Amino acid sequence: MQITREKWSKNFSEWFDWVLREGEFYDYGRYPVKGMGVWMPYGFKLRQNIISIIRNLLDSTGHEEVLFPLLIPEDLLSRESTHIKGFEEEVFWVTKGGSEDLDVKLALRPTSEVAITTMENLWLKSYKQLPKKYYQIVSVFRYETKATRPMIRLREITTFKEAHTVHETYDDAQRQVEEAIEIYKKIFNNLAIPYVLSERPEWDRFAGALHTYAFDTIMPDGKVMQIGTVHHLGQNFSRALDFKIQKKDGSLDYPHQTSYGISDRAIASVIAIHGDDHGPILPPSVAPIKVVVVPIPAKNEEGTQQVMKYSVEICEMLNKNNITCVTDQDTEKTPGEKFYIWEIKGVPIRLEIGPRELASSTVFIKRRDNLKSYTVKKEEVVNKVKEVLNEIQEDLRKRAWESLKSRIEYANDIEKAKNLLENNSGIVEVPWCGSKECGLKIEELTNARVLGYPIEDRKVNDKCVICKMNAKTVLRVAKTY
Amino acid sequence: MQITREKWSKNFSEWFDWVLREGEFYDYGRYPVKGMGVWMPYGFKLRQNIISIIRNLLDSTGHEEVLFPLLIPEDLLSRESTHIKGFEEEVFWVTKGGSEDLDVKLALRPTSEVAITTMENLWLKSYKQLPKKYYQIVSVFRYETKATRPMIRLREITTFKEAHTVHETYDDAQRQVEEAIEIYKKIFNNLAIPYVLSERPEWDRFAGALHTYAFDTIMPDGKVMQIGTVHHLGQNFSRALDFKIQKKDGSLDYPHQTSYGISDRAIASVIAIHGDDHGPILPPSVAPIKVVVVPIPAKNEEGTQQVMKYSVEICEMLNKNNITCVTDQDTEKTPGEKFYIWEIKGVPIRLEIGPRELASSTVFIKRRDNLKSYTVKKEEVVNKVKEVLNEIQEDLRKRAWESLKSRIEYANDIEKAKNLLENNSGIVEVPWCGSKECGLKIEELTNARVLGYPIEDRKVNDKCVICKMNAKTVLRVAKTY
Repeated sequence: MQITREKWSKNFSEWFDWVLREGEFYDYGRYPVKGMGVWMPYGFKLRQNIISIIRNLLDSTGHEEVLFPLLIPEDLLSRESTHIKGFEEEVFWVTKGGSEDLDVKLALRPTSEVAITTMENLWLKSYKQLPKKYYQIVSVFRYETKATRPMIRLREITTFKEAHTVHETYDDAQRQVEEAIEIYKKIFNNLAIPYVLSERPEWDRFAGALHTYAFDTIMPDGKVMQIGTVHHLGQNFSRALDFKIQKKDGSLDYPHQTSYGISDRAIASVIAIHGDDHGPILPPSVAPIKVVVVPIPAKNEEGTQQVMKYSVEICEMLNKNNITCVTDQDTEKTPGEKFYIWEIKGVPIRLEIGPRELASSTVFIKRRDNLKSYTVKKEEVVNKVKEVLNEIQEDLRKRAWESLKSRIEYANDIEKAKNLLENNSGIVEVPWCGSKECGLKIEELTNARVLGYPIEDRKVNDKCVICKMNAKTVLRVAKTY
Repeated sequence: MQITREKWSKNFSEWFDWVLREGEFYDYGRYPVKGMGVWMPYGFKLRQNIISIIRNLLDSTGHEEVLFPLLIPEDLLSRESTHIKGFEEEVFWVTKGGSEDLDVKLALRPTSEVAITTMENLWLKSYKQLPKKYYQIVSVFRYETKATRPMIRLREITTFKEAHTVHETYDDAQRQVEEAIEIYKKIFNNLAIPYVLSERPEWDRFAGALHTYAFDTIMPDGKVMQIGTVHHLGQNFSRALDFKIQKKDGSLDYPHQTSYGISDRAIASVIAIHGDDHGPILPPSVAPIKVVVVPIPAKNEEGTQQVMKYSVEICEMLNKNNITCVTDQDTEKTPGEKFYIWEIKGVPIRLEIGPRELASSTVFIKRRDNLKSYTVKKEEVVNKVKEVLNEIQEDLRKRAWESLKSRIEYANDIEKAKNLLENNSGIVEVPWCGSKECGLKIEELTNARVLGYPIEDRKVNDKCVICKMNAKTVLRVAKTY
């Protein structure tokens, strides 16, 4: 049995706003600057848990965390010409200090390639220091003119993990791209988030990159959201900033770089994708609270006191075993009201403990995802809860992957593709000859966005939907955030 | 035996710049925006360890971490009139988004009282929700016109821990001030940083506060640095932002608030205060690397290989026991060069392992602080290292406290006070009647800064150095950063 997913899929925007606010994750739309939200304590903990997963995976693969200044002078940001063109219309500029005008405008970082390359130029001199992998987790700013959305399209992106790496050769950088992709797969796997990996077409690369690889996921409303990107920058930035290193053969040359980023959207997708009409279901890997105990009052005060004592005892037992648990001891709310609250917070397991459980030294365990329940003896609670948490993690991942796969359609006809997209089908793959002209035409005719093409070879025994030449691969098209 | 402290005390500025750069803590003065530095990987780890101590102490006392937007609209920042007067000349303003002028100027947060009170006004309605204690760790910005200094006087303060609390009554807020002071004492104790706690005089309070209590420490050059402040805000901000709560008696009233902050200066003081002419000595409580193993080469390659293997084995043993250890396996540097590098990084214990140690299954342990050494059997290494780390922590704290105490002088004569201050004596306490006029006169005549007065009663059988009336307490004066 499952809770319905009507509101969740049909009115996703409302559902998401409701969960963020009522679940006390993120206060959005009330802080007096457009496109900037406030992380509330509960949401902040979820964010920290997700950051921990990212940090651990980066640290264990030789990435070093750093912290660069927020502000980038205009002349520096302009050094790589494609880069500045891509960003100049969406940069916030600091122009005054106190009542003085600044000599040079300072950008709130939209991303940090030029800032970091500037310092790498001072720190790195020889191939012996390479590969070098830095990362930072910071706020970045975009003066978005499109409609903003909490966690998804922001003017302050507060959780931008940006990695920047330096390599002796093009191929070394390409291998780093592959490592980054593997790391991102692990991150999303940990978050139980399914994804589609595509190489972005040449007309939609990161400003200044040779290649952009992107992870996309499908949101409950069928729209696609980019959740991670990996860029091969080649020598574009090292050349623009005149950053050279000594190579193994003794010559001086511009090193090759990569950069890759993940943002608040990773958190948004964790909250959104595993939801239902009662709220989100947080994967146990990142849930700030894994178990909530709701005591069920007895008929008299003394009985209720004993239930409360037993509830706290069970909860402490779980906490001692590193399973974060809270007991909801509020005396003014009914159990039903408490169920509602903890469901909106996405706590994966609820324990209901009343006079019956007390009398029989048992615990009633309820899964948030499929509503299955178990009554177990007190001494079996810890093991059973661990087992159920693992099952929930696995089942959430499976359900999300199945849902994603079911929303990828193939259409060898442009009208069919357009219809599918208009009915929120998710991602449509169409056979494609590989030319930019046909790609842009596909975007135009479907009134949707091209995500790119698979990074692995894809045999397609079909004709390009535009020019009718033999298709070389498929092009993925979607309505996107 | 101790390493000299000549450079350290006589040329502290040079010493500090040298340590930050050579120790790879913080790159300052080379990033192309004045007053903004870059946390390098090693410094970042030290920063993280210090942040962890702060977080643990705040979390365990019921503080909840949040994250607010960077930008504060001008009209909001101006709501509390004393507050804006205190900050307006040192705020960075964002005035443009892309090529458009913004309707309202946006300040880079100099501190977050008004931003946080704005949201508290939406979140908190009743005394039942109080006390409420929020904190965040963020960058704050000051358009400093004074000369900037790495970590000490910055335009971007990257590690600002600001706590903001809400209470029903004035007295509740006062009790929170006391809790905050106790927490800060524990933080500084953990960092082995000695301090003097004073109430700041009325003419030097935080802009908008009723009372400001400050922790100051004395730097190697005798100048005093503020390292933490705690403010009783009363109803100033709640009134300015029309933030009311329902009190226990049913009435609506403005709640009372406090705020308290610690910054990058806590990190600067850890690096500075325990130093000597070879570099800093990081307290084991926060040292990113607690033990470095320097292998001493044998006469032949095979022997050196065996030494290396033994070194790595010892290091792994320590790491398994949660004592962070690295083995310096560089084959191009001599042991002497390695000693130099790890001393500048402030690693508290060095193990020297050569053919002699290998042959006898022993390890040579050298303390960074007092150069004491011990040769112990391999199986005793873990325990001995733990013991020595504890001793270093304790000895650093003791030495720093003794040094601080020796630099607090008493002078019942303004000329004597002035002379002491001109000779870098640290803090001078002078008898004071308690009046603002005399306080300002003391500042003027000593050409120094008043820190304030002790928070506890202080009997002084002396006359005020200015008006010669009976002194009520002492006023502390110092040359400050």
